[in-house]
Order: sequence, then structure tokens, then C-alpha cells
Amino acid sequence: MSEKVTLAILSGDLDKAQAAFNIAIGAASMGMDVSMFFTFWGLNIIRKEKASSSSKSLLKRMMGLLNKGGANRLKISKFNMLGIGTRIMKKFMKENEMPTVEEMIKLSKDLGVKLIACTTTMGVMDISKDSLIDEVDKLAGVATFLADAKESEVNLFI
Amino acid sequence: MSEKVTLAILSGDLDKAQAAFNIAIGAASMGMDVSMFFTFWGLNIIRKEKASSSSKSLLKRMMGLLNKGGANRLKISKFNMLGIGTRIMKKFMKENEMPTVEEMIKLSKDLGVKLIACTTTMGVMDISKDSLIDEVDKLAGVATFLADAKESEVNLFI
Amino acid sequence: MSEKVTLAILSGDLDKAQAAFNIAIGAASMGMDVSMFFTFWGLNIIRKEKASSSSKSLLKRMMGLLNKGGANRLKISKFNMLGIGTRIMKKFMKENEMPTVEEMIKLSKDLGVKLIACTTTMGVMDISKDSLIDEVDKLAGVATFLADAKESEVNLFI
Repeated sequence: MSEKVTLAILSGDLDKAQAAFNIAIGAASMGMDVSMFFTFWGLNIIRKEKASSSSKSLLKRMMGLLNKGGANRLKISKFNMLGIGTRIMKKFMKENEMPTVEEMIKLSKDLGVKLIACTTTMGVMDISKDSLIDEVDKLAGVATFLADAKESEVNLFI
Repeated sequence: MSEKVTLAILSGDLDKAQAAFNIAIGAASMGMDVSMFFTFWGLNIIRKEKASSSSKSLLKRMMGLLNKGGANRLKISKFNMLGIGTRIMKKFMKENEMPTVEEMIKLSKDLGVKLIACTTTMGVMDISKDSLIDEVDKLAGVATFLADAKESEVNLFI
Repeated sequence: MSEKVTLAILSGDLDKAQAAFNIAIGAASMGMDVSMFFTFWGLNIIRKEKASSSSKSLLKRMMGLLNKGGANRLKISKFNMLGIGTRIMKKFMKENEMPTVEEMIKLSKDLGVKLIACTTTMGVMDISKDSLIDEVDKLAGVATFLADAKESEVNLFI
């Protein structure tokens, strides 16, 4: 049986998303089974960029304006400086021929990494299945996460 | 022998506390043994709300004014916006009939989850045993954490 | 064979560095093999304090001015308040006779903890081997991290 890696991704920071996908792609390349659970701000990584909230609740629509999805919109966790730091980091990544998070998502999928969206967060934030990118494999809760995690050699909370 | 989950909780953010207790409650419901180690800002989750510092040190009393305890006082890690974002998030949780962190602490205890306070942080921050909530099972250091963690199927640092 | 602990350290916050070294020193004292992988901001913990960027890129030199290395320069993740909170925390550590991060690095090394710098981040940030402290054991990528992690009883992402 293959060795397993389970990643829980609560953070929506660019640097942490890059670290998570580097680990996922590395592990999948080494023949390990990888599951990535996206919860809270981590869901932004696997939301469509133009997804707008169709919620009837004004507050949820307001929160949706602040908390925008899309792998291309993630910010670094330090030195963001109104977006300047994030732009510089992206430039550095490009100069070093590092893939973007969007490219890493596609590469992960090609290598069989499973992308799972947390149903609890989707409920609280009013995020519909339609607003998630097509690469998402399934929606699941904490029981599915734990069932994967307890069979895994490597579990990380990112 | 039961499968085990050990969580180290350094963060005092509302969203991370919710994630930690969701995992703890989920695991305990599935029959797993769960230990939660609260350290640094994570200790705020298991401090009494009205606990004031009785330290003779002015600096420690000042730090106590900033770094207030109480599960009900936790802030979200993003979009807090002077408390508005945290209030909105709590409203969303309530609308979705999600339990509060205080309720999740009680539920965890009913399911046999062990809550452990880090003695090192308590010493540095001058936090007394009396200022912790009654649900805390014991005070312990890193050796106890590691003894639990190395026997656990799932270890997460939150 | 010894039990193993593998820590991935992405954060460059003082409190998280202290937590990571507390765990590393505790585990090594208990006879466990410990590997610490420093990536992204975590690299600052194992950079020399006076290291300046020799990059030809103006942007990288600018980023180097913001993102300074050195264990002695780390800031706490909350209540930093332009450095005041960090100074207070360091004072508390000293009053409690807790070692500084610099002292913990030396203690870790005496106990056989392995310090590993992430080559990917070094490339992106233009951080040379010379600018890292002498205590660093080796430079490696995600494959080395995963090879260690999958043999470890305890894996944490900090």
C-alpha cells in the first residue's frame, strides 16, 4: 500500500499555499498518496477568481467582497505592504522559473493529488460548490479528514 | 489500544481555535484519544475571561491588559477590522447553528478530550493555575507533549 | 532504531521559533533524532545577523533590507507594537532564565539536532550559503524533507 500524506490548509497566504503545494507535488512525485483539505481562508486557494457571493445575506455579500477567492489573488503573510511585497515575491518566483499556485494546482492534479473542500466552512461562509474550481475532487467534513490523517505517514496543518 | 490525536495549539486566533476543537471533537466522536496542549497565545483559549494578572511586575500587568484571556474574546486571524470581522464571523457561526468555542470546550470534555496547559508559557507570562478554566485537566511541559505525540497517529501544530 | 521528529519551520516569528526549539531540544534530550527544515521566513532564524544581500537585483536588495535575518532580530507574532512587545517578551524570558533562540540553536546542535536550509527558498530569495550561520548542517529540498518526515513519529509544520 502506498504511503500517505494528508495536509490541512487553513491559511490563505500565498507563501503557505506555495509550501503546501511544493510538499504535495514532491510527495506525489515520490509515489505517495496525497490529500489536501482546504478549510477557512484556505478555501480561497481553490475558489474561482470571479466567484461572487449570491447570498441573500448582506453581511455575507460584504464579507465576500473582502474575502475574495482565487489562487492568483493570494497575498504573502509578511511584508505584503498593500500588495507590493506580494508582487515582488511573485516576480522572484517567476525569475527562478517556479510555477505559480495556479500552475501547481494543475500539476498536483496530474500527479493524482486529491483536493478536498471543507463543507463546514462552505456552510458558514456561504460558499457554493459552483464557486470552487473544477479541480476540486470532493466536499467533505472533519470525519473524512481524520480517516485520511490517521492512515497517513505525514500529517501537516498549514 | 485506541488511536490517538495530539494537538499543539500555539495560536490564540478564533478561527484556529474553532478548527482545533472541530478536529478534537470529530476525533473523540470516532473513539480516538485526544490531547490538546495549549501554549503561548493558545493559553488564552483556556483562560478565564475575567482573570487579571496578580503579578508584582508592572510589565506583566501591562502585558496582561493587552493579552486578555477567555474563549469568548478570541479574534479571527484575518479581517478582524477592530472587531467587526470577528463579530460577523460569530454571527455566521450562530446562523449555521455551529457551537461557540466555549460550547466546544464543554463538548470536548464530555467526549473525554484532555486539555493540557503548557507550564513553560505559564511561567513566562505569569499565568497562575487559578486563572485557567476548570475544564483544564493538567499542567505539563514539552516532555509530556512529546510522550503523547510519539504514540499518536495524528499530530498537528495549530 | 531511534524515534524521529521532523519539524518544518516556515514562520520567522520569535514565539514560533522558541516553540520549535523547545520541542527540538526536548525531543533530542529524550533520545529522539530531530531534523529541522527551515523554509521561507523560517530561514531568517538561521541567517547571520549582518548578512547583506549581494544580489545584483535592486528588488532583491530592497527585499533584503526589509526581511533581515538573525535569530536575535525575530519578532513575536502578536503585540509586537513596533518592537515593544518583543522587547517585553524577551525580558520575561530572561527573568525566567529561559535561553534565547541563539542559545537554543547552540544547545540543539550539542544534542545532535540537524538544521537544514530549504534550497528552493534560498534560490527565490537569493540567500547564499555564506549568509547562513555555521550551525546549519546541510541544504536540501522537499524530497529530503519528505524522506525524513515519512520515517518520523512526530511531524509538525510550524
